[in-house]
Amino acid sequence: MSASRVTIVERIMDANDQVAELNRRRLDEAGVFGINLMASPGAGKTSTILKTIQMLQPDIKIGVVEGDTAPVTIDADKVLAAGMPAVQINTGGDCHLDAPMLDQGLSQLPLNELDLMIVENVGNLICPAAFKLGTHANVLIASIPEGDDKPYKYPNIYRGLDVLIINKIDLLPYIDFRMDYFRQGVEALNPGLITFEVSAKTGEGFEAWTQWLRGKVKKA
Amino acid sequence: MSASRVTIVERIMDANDQVAELNRRRLDEAGVFGINLMASPGAGKTSTILKTIQMLQPDIKIGVVEGDTAPVTIDADKVLAAGMPAVQINTGGDCHLDAPMLDQGLSQLPLNELDLMIVENVGNLICPAAFKLGTHANVLIASIPEGDDKPYKYPNIYRGLDVLIINKIDLLPYIDFRMDYFRQGVEALNPGLITFEVSAKTGEGFEAWTQWLRGKVKKA
Repeated sequence: MSASRVTIVERIMDANDQVAELNRRRLDEAGVFGINLMASPGAGKTSTILKTIQMLQPDIKIGVVEGDTAPVTIDADKVLAAGMPAVQINTGGDCHLDAPMLDQGLSQLPLNELDLMIVENVGNLICPAAFKLGTHANVLIASIPEGDDKPYKYPNIYRGLDVLIINKIDLLPYIDFRMDYFRQGVEALNPGLITFEVSAKTGEGFEAWTQWLRGKVKKA
Repeated sequence: MSASRVTIVERIMDANDQVAELNRRRLDEAGVFGINLMASPGAGKTSTILKTIQMLQPDIKIGVVEGDTAPVTIDADKVLAAGMPAVQINTGGDCHLDAPMLDQGLSQLPLNELDLMIVENVGNLICPAAFKLGTHANVLIASIPEGDDKPYKYPNIYRGLDVLIINKIDLLPYIDFRMDYFRQGVEALNPGLITFEVSAKTGEGFEAWTQWLRGKVKKA
């Protein structure tokens, strides 16, 4: 890799962080708490968002920015069907959202009417960790079928988290998943990380997660 | 993005493809059939490799190149414990292996003693699709808990496949997964794609998959 490419990439990163700061200011001025929700494909990002909407309505209004690598609206359609505004951003093949993409998304949401804004980032455990968006909290959904070694294999994303959601605990009886080993790995990377064990299918654990969200929304 | 960066990236891609061709020649000269195994985190790449080793030994000798974004040897250690040579490649945070990385990996394997070489690519559905390695077949493992909408959301990786493995079918009774909807999505992207439904946990479906491999190894 040539030196010139490195320099250009650094400049792109700087620009991203500047736009991230503008995004944050925009959320703060509108009194909206913003979350960057990350996960592997199929860990349950959309179903967690839908369950969260269900638990928090009608008193908390939620807007969603959906990031996908392809021009599909599967996830945004589900959020719209749940009665909340949603915007779909197509990254054009890129493996993450960046701050300018979120800026575009925010422009299409009725920010002044919202209490909470959730970004559903592109599904993977690598690229999203490297790009600030300007949200207030980085939240990762890990899921039981993914296996208990993921903190050891994808340490970067765990280091930058504010909240961890462990989803699909309803599948624990059918899968070899050592919760102790998993949580030890997380603790080594991010000591004291706020963690919720949930099932978006059965609703277990969502009381605690949405209570945490209510506390944050009140302050925003 | 500036024009100069685009040009540099194109040049990097060209160099990658050239090294991929050299990798292919090296495999062909040694009579080794090479597979590029891709999947989401936790779809079961390593357990599928281990089950495949178990089914094909002692008559077929398999070498494995493990790609990870972090300096961990969890997967390579498992392959070594199964009695086969394994090399761990740390991508240093990159979300995919590239041809020069595989070139390094091949140099550390006893190619002339092998029949089959499996690359376990970095776990995600986006970046690995864009980089040729020089292997003979692109194989994706999809898994039931990931959900049935993945072909619609990650079309690029499905388009470039030679074989699809649908893993964790033992979890079908516990998960809402519409096999018809999933397979329709695949068919639209990659008509007639060779597909195996398996469970690396119970061994179901591995007879058909390893028989396909035996046919390929014989010709290599």
